[in-house]
Formats: sequence, C-alpha cells, structure tokens
Amino acid sequence: MERIKPRTLSGFMELLPARQMQFERILNTLKETYALYGFTPLDTPLIESSEILLAKGGGETEKQIYRFQKGDSDLSLRFDLTVPLAKYVAMNYANLSFPFKRYQIGKVYRGERAQRGRFREFYQADIDIIGDGSLDITNEAEIPSIIYRAFTSLGLQRFKIRINNRKLLNGFFELLGLKDASAGIMRAIDKLDKIGADKVRAILVEDEGLSAELADEILRFITSEDKIGTLSQYTGKCALFDEGAEELRTVASYMTEYGIPDDHFEIDFTIARGLDYYTGTVYETMMLDHPEIGSICSGGRYDHLAEYYTEKALPGVGISIGVTRLFYVLGEQGYLNDAIVTAPADVLILPMMEDGKAAASLATYLRGCGIRTQVYSEKKKFKAKIGYADRLGIPFAAILGEDELQAGKLSLKNMATGEQQLVTREEAAEIVRQAMALKNNEKPIKE
Amino acid sequence: MERIKPRTLSGFMELLPARQMQFERILNTLKETYALYGFTPLDTPLIESSEILLAKGGGETEKQIYRFQKGDSDLSLRFDLTVPLAKYVAMNYANLSFPFKRYQIGKVYRGERAQRGRFREFYQADIDIIGDGSLDITNEAEIPSIIYRAFTSLGLQRFKIRINNRKLLNGFFELLGLKDASAGIMRAIDKLDKIGADKVRAILVEDEGLSAELADEILRFITSEDKIGTLSQYTGKCALFDEGAEELRTVASYMTEYGIPDDHFEIDFTIARGLDYYTGTVYETMMLDHPEIGSICSGGRYDHLAEYYTEKALPGVGISIGVTRLFYVLGEQGYLNDAIVTAPADVLILPMMEDGKAAASLATYLRGCGIRTQVYSEKKKFKAKIGYADRLGIPFAAILGEDELQAGKLSLKNMATGEQQLVTREEAAEIVRQAMALKNNEKPIKE
Repeated sequence: MERIKPRTLSGFMELLPARQMQFERILNTLKETYALYGFTPLDTPLIESSEILLAKGGGETEKQIYRFQKGDSDLSLRFDLTVPLAKYVAMNYANLSFPFKRYQIGKVYRGERAQRGRFREFYQADIDIIGDGSLDITNEAEIPSIIYRAFTSLGLQRFKIRINNRKLLNGFFELLGLKDASAGIMRAIDKLDKIGADKVRAILVEDEGLSAELADEILRFITSEDKIGTLSQYTGKCALFDEGAEELRTVASYMTEYGIPDDHFEIDFTIARGLDYYTGTVYETMMLDHPEIGSICSGGRYDHLAEYYTEKALPGVGISIGVTRLFYVLGEQGYLNDAIVTAPADVLILPMMEDGKAAASLATYLRGCGIRTQVYSEKKKFKAKIGYADRLGIPFAAILGEDELQAGKLSLKNMATGEQQLVTREEAAEIVRQAMALKNNEKPIKE
Repeated sequence: MERIKPRTLSGFMELLPARQMQFERILNTLKETYALYGFTPLDTPLIESSEILLAKGGGETEKQIYRFQKGDSDLSLRFDLTVPLAKYVAMNYANLSFPFKRYQIGKVYRGERAQRGRFREFYQADIDIIGDGSLDITNEAEIPSIIYRAFTSLGLQRFKIRINNRKLLNGFFELLGLKDASAGIMRAIDKLDKIGADKVRAILVEDEGLSAELADEILRFITSEDKIGTLSQYTGKCALFDEGAEELRTVASYMTEYGIPDDHFEIDFTIARGLDYYTGTVYETMMLDHPEIGSICSGGRYDHLAEYYTEKALPGVGISIGVTRLFYVLGEQGYLNDAIVTAPADVLILPMMEDGKAAASLATYLRGCGIRTQVYSEKKKFKAKIGYADRLGIPFAAILGEDELQAGKLSLKNMATGEQQLVTREEAAEIVRQAMALKNNEKPIKE
C-alpha cells in the first residue's frame, strides 16, 4: 500500500496529550469566570455566507479569509467572533433579553503568512454586553473586574489592566484645535513606551507640524502622574472631552468595589485600540515582565454592533483573549504549570491475573466515586504496566493480585512517593480523592 | 446604509441561549463521563490537507466534503474525527503511550442535501482506545460500560446496548459455505426488525439463491433466544467463528462487573455496522421507545486505524455519538429537561439607587462564593428590572435600596415562589448555594 506521510498544516496548533490538558484547563477557567459574571455561552457556525461575514468589507482581514464555493454558495470561515455575534443579535433580536451578555470561546481562521507564534486557526475567548438602544457606563466599569478575575484564576499575578476613553482622547485633540491631526498624533503617542518622550515630541513637531507648545502640552497630559487630577484642568472646554472624562472617572471609581487591587489597574492616555470601531472606554492588559508580548486581553465600548444587518441601535462593550497565542507565549516563557493534573486518569488499575473481572468491578466502584480510573488490560509484565502509569504521570496504581483479592483489598501505590499500602476500595477512594483535591488546587499558570 | 438580511446557513444548528445551555450540559456530561474512564481530550484542526483527509479516497463521503484551495494548498474540512485521529497517532507515535485512549468532541462537516434533522455542521463525541500491535479483548468489554454511564448520566434510562461480533458473523457464513454471499445475506437480515422473518426468508431464498434449509438455519440462528447457548452448536467447525464466539462470550461475561443491568444489554446477531471497517465486537444503542431514530451510539473494533499513514499495526476500538442530531431528536420528542439551569446567572442584583457601588461590592462577594451573579445596571423602572430576571429565568433577585443599605443587608427574592427576605450577604450566598445545588442535580434529559 502506498502511504502518505502524516502531517498537520503549518499555523495550526495540535498538542500532545499533557499539553492539551493544560490548554483545556485554561479554556475551562475562562468559561467558569465568564459564567460567574452572568454571561451565557453561545456557539455559532464556523461557516457563514460570505455576504454576511464580509458585510463590512475591505481591509487587511478580507485577504486573509478562507473563502470558498460549495455548490451555489459563496462561503467563508469566521475570522472573529464579533461579526457572528452581530448577525446573531440582529437575527434573534425579538427573542433575546437586553442587556444581552454572551461569551463565546471558539476557533477562528485567518490565512496569515505562517511564522513562529502566528496561527491560522486559533481560539478566541470573547465576552460582550449588548444593550438595546443604550447601555449604562457601569457595564464598562465591570469589564476590568472580569479581566482581573480571569487572569488571577489562571494563576497570573504580574499584569496590569490599562484603560482609556476614546471620547476623552478625541475631545482632547479637539479642544487643542487638532481634530484633523488626531490620527497622526495618536500614532506618535502610541510609541511613547518604545521610543520615549523626546522622540515623540520630535515626531509631533517635525512630522505632524505641531507647535512646540502644543507638543509639550500633549506630552504633559499623557504623561501626567495624577491622571484624574489632570482632567479637571481641561474641564468645560469641550463637551466630548467632558463626557469622556466623566466616564473615565466613573469607571475608575468602581475599581475597589469590583475587587481590583490598585496595582493591577491604571489609566493610560496613550491607549487608542484602533481608530474607528471603539467609541468609549478601551482596555488593554499587559504582562509586567513581558511588555514585548503586547496586550493579552483587549477591547472596548462600541456604539454600533450590527449596523450592517439592522437599523436598531445596539451599543456594546466587550473584550477578547487570543487564547492560542497566549498559550503559545506562556509555553515559550516557561509559565505553564506542570504541577497541574495532566494525566488522563487518577488511578491505573493493574490486574495481576488472567481474569480481569475484579479489576472491572473496582473500576466501576471508583468511577462511581467520581475518580478517573483506567484499567490496564494488556497482558504485559508488571514492569511494563507500572511503567505506563509512570510515563503518563498517573498519580496512583491499584494493584490487584491473588493476595489482594483473598484479603478483599487492593494495593494502592502512590507513584510519586513509591509508598504502597493494602487498603479496602473505600479507603483507596478516600486517599485518591484527598490527593486529587490538593492537586486540582494548582492553577494552570505559574509565574 | 444598505443592509444585509442576517441569516444562518441551512443545515447549521444555532441555538437560542436557553437551548444552548441545555446543549452545553450534554457536551459537559459526555466529557466528564469519558474522562472518568481515563480518556484524554484531543483537539485537532478543523482543516487538514486534502491529501491527508482523503487518503482512503472514494465513496459517498468524498462528494460531501467541503474542499477548497487557499494559495497553493488543497484543503478540506474534517468529515469525521477518526481520520484526524489516525493522522495524529501515526504522526505522534513515538510520543504517545499505548494503549492510547483519547476522546474528542468537536464539529465535523458534510455537505449533505439539506433536510429536516440533517446537519452539515454537527458535533461528534468520540472515544477510541488504540493499541500498539495488539489490544486485549477486555477493552472491547469496557465500551458498553461507557455507553451505559454516558446515557444514564444524561438522564436517559430506556435504552438498550446491542452487541455482536464480526468474526462470529463472517465465520458463521463461512461454515455454512456461504462466504461469497455474506454481503447479500447481511443486507437481508439487517432488515429483520422492519420486515419480519418471513420476508427475510423470502429474500434469502429468492434473491440470494439460498436453499430453504440454509435460510431456515440462518433465521433460527439469528433469532435464537439463548444466543450464548446457540453458539456452542456450531463450535469446532470454523476457526473464525470459534474466535468470534469466544470474544463475544468474554465481552458478555464482563457486563455485571462493568455495572450494566441485564435489561440494558443484549447480543444481537443481526448487527453488522457496515461491511469492511470493523473486525471484532460491534455496538449499537437503541432508544426503546424510538427505534425509528436508529442507533444513538455506535462503533466497534477495527484492526487498522492508520494504515494509510504508517506500516505500524494500530488496532483499536471506539464509539461515536452524533450529538447534534441526538439533541435535535431529543428536542423534537420533548425529552429535553427544562428544569435544568438555563439562566445565565443564579442571582440578578437590582441596584435601586443612582450609585451602583454597593451592587458592585455585593456582586464581587457573591462571585467570590462561586455564585453566578449579574448586576442589572440600566436605569430602568423596578418592573423592567425584575421582568428581566423573570424572562431569563434567573432564580434569585437581590434588591439593594436605601433601606437595605442602612441595615447592611439585601432583600433576596426567590423568583419562583415570590418569597422575599431581608438577609445579610453571607445568608444570601448560603440560600442561593443550597437552591442551586438542588437545581444542578437535574439531568439534561427527562423521559
């Protein structure tokens, strides 16, 4: 028979079992966190009509889309979870209750040029709160709380959530008489972290044609220590600025009540998150020790979720985590906690006799106790059997031989310590349960 | 702005929130059950190279495949989870421990003609045990235990697992001297349930050219009451038959130890499950009150998982549940249990004052207790707020007004009974936790 060399497409993450268990733990933690905040899970098709998916049209994204013909249909694979949400909300408007809070964790597709750490198939983990006509600012205040709980539940501690407000930013340029130059100014101040204040100032003056005074004023504003205090200096000069300042104050005032420590949150006037989609609060999340990774959770407030499908005003606020890339980066940096349970079972039963019925019976009992149990049924030598438990990292081996059967017991071996004890199945279940409860306290990320 | 009517492609299941919660419960129950048996989760790409996916080639499936070009690549969407598993095992052979037990629950794609209850995108929930060179028969005995626990955990009771053995069947035809007619005979006896013994007999004689005696013998064999007893009548005449009989006896002998009640299991000599893939035990699962649905969980033993990719002998045994179709059918038959928790939150907090900080603080506390909590932040009348909890089926409303705040308490309203009590947040958490523990005992299927 002619054989084909098995391979997985480049840009598609496919993990070995232990790594996959770590990835699943991360997805599950995100699901649980999103659910704690009252978001409902959604699952939309991976394929949509191209007409629907590309309603917005144009841009860099369109080139990357997996688009194809099937019969008479022009189809595309989803490239994010926002467009399918917009379709869903517009389509099911009459059957939804607003504010509509949904989470979706699923794969999306972008045919990017393959390179290390770039994926063509990757998971996004999104939440959005959609209002019907309006949406209160306190929804924007709740988002950092979700980001904080999500990452700390994963085990990450050294991160900071940065927020800004697009109204404030646009209002600030407007009140300086620089409305038309705002895009160029934004691009320049976005580089502050990387190139420093002097170089940003030079760009503002030389490339953007600002006066030295205006450039200084902008730099003073964005680098001010007391950000909330700085806002009051400009109050009353521009309605848009005042609105943004008020929103930012409100959002910031909720951080304590939403359980976010001061050192995990800051206002940062340099954050813009793209130039046209977001209209209010915007969010970024940086790993303190790895700013080079960029934001690991971003989003913001927008005014028109589904304008391509409905005339209804559907404002919203949402964030997204690119889980596949985050997982890859965490792995590269050695942040994945290998102490979490990655074994497929808590107990491996080793039947030492021809007849496996006692093993089957013990397995049925342990599974009834909620213990993940595997029976090693192959007719191999003891060394091969116990070696299997060892290689897979299964924490306990339950040995069932003549002696054990006659005593109505089993030998439970703790694979880590080597300790072995003759116990009843009830005792075994209790020992395993306690050990696993401890192990399951481990978080998937370890700094 | 020109708007596009939002729609979802036909043949693609997209659920409203409450239904989606029911579907998630079913997927989670299957995951938990598979994990209890020591299967490890796998997640392979939805897109594979067409060369890999179609290595086997030909057949009805190939016409249904979503296949397309992207750049220089000829790509296809997976149409099952078995071919990707074969690729994965062949590719990662050196890094896996055998027997390799994996589960995978994921979407697959088949461009079938759209019709009611037929899906082009649907979930399969598969488990497979893959051996390296050999795989003990007791693995085949364990499979019905997994099927039984999976369906009873979902809440289904009135079903029966039917098993047969392909060696036995092929051996039987061989010992009757009917080896070459076996395909036609199988097709005929497969119809026994539908058309009855007389018509099957007529087909065997008239269409297949069997003598009346042989036709009678076949019918006596497949309809015998004492199936295990019947086997001994034919022992010693054909090695293949004897081997199959021995395997079937072994599998049947384990059912009690694997926790399967007698009335949920039977041997059925009419089951073949296709003609060329399976080589040993085969499984079907029928709903007693809905035989018209066909098998809701099927599979069997095979000898060559990855023969198109590797020369290694990789025998295995596996089963698959078509979850999307099953969910659709259960919904049609009214089997979905609406008493399970389908609300996005356990508690909806209604802040009755302008400032929402007390609500934020309460939400943070309740979430810390593991209670799914949503804050209703819109500035609406009380009736609109409480109506939102009502429509979403949220079991508890926590009302926070001036009086409650001054007392350092909250008014907890049980939405089902209308009962309202002034309690501390600790008391509220305890009341909600107890109520939800009860509600979470409900299973997703109710007969």
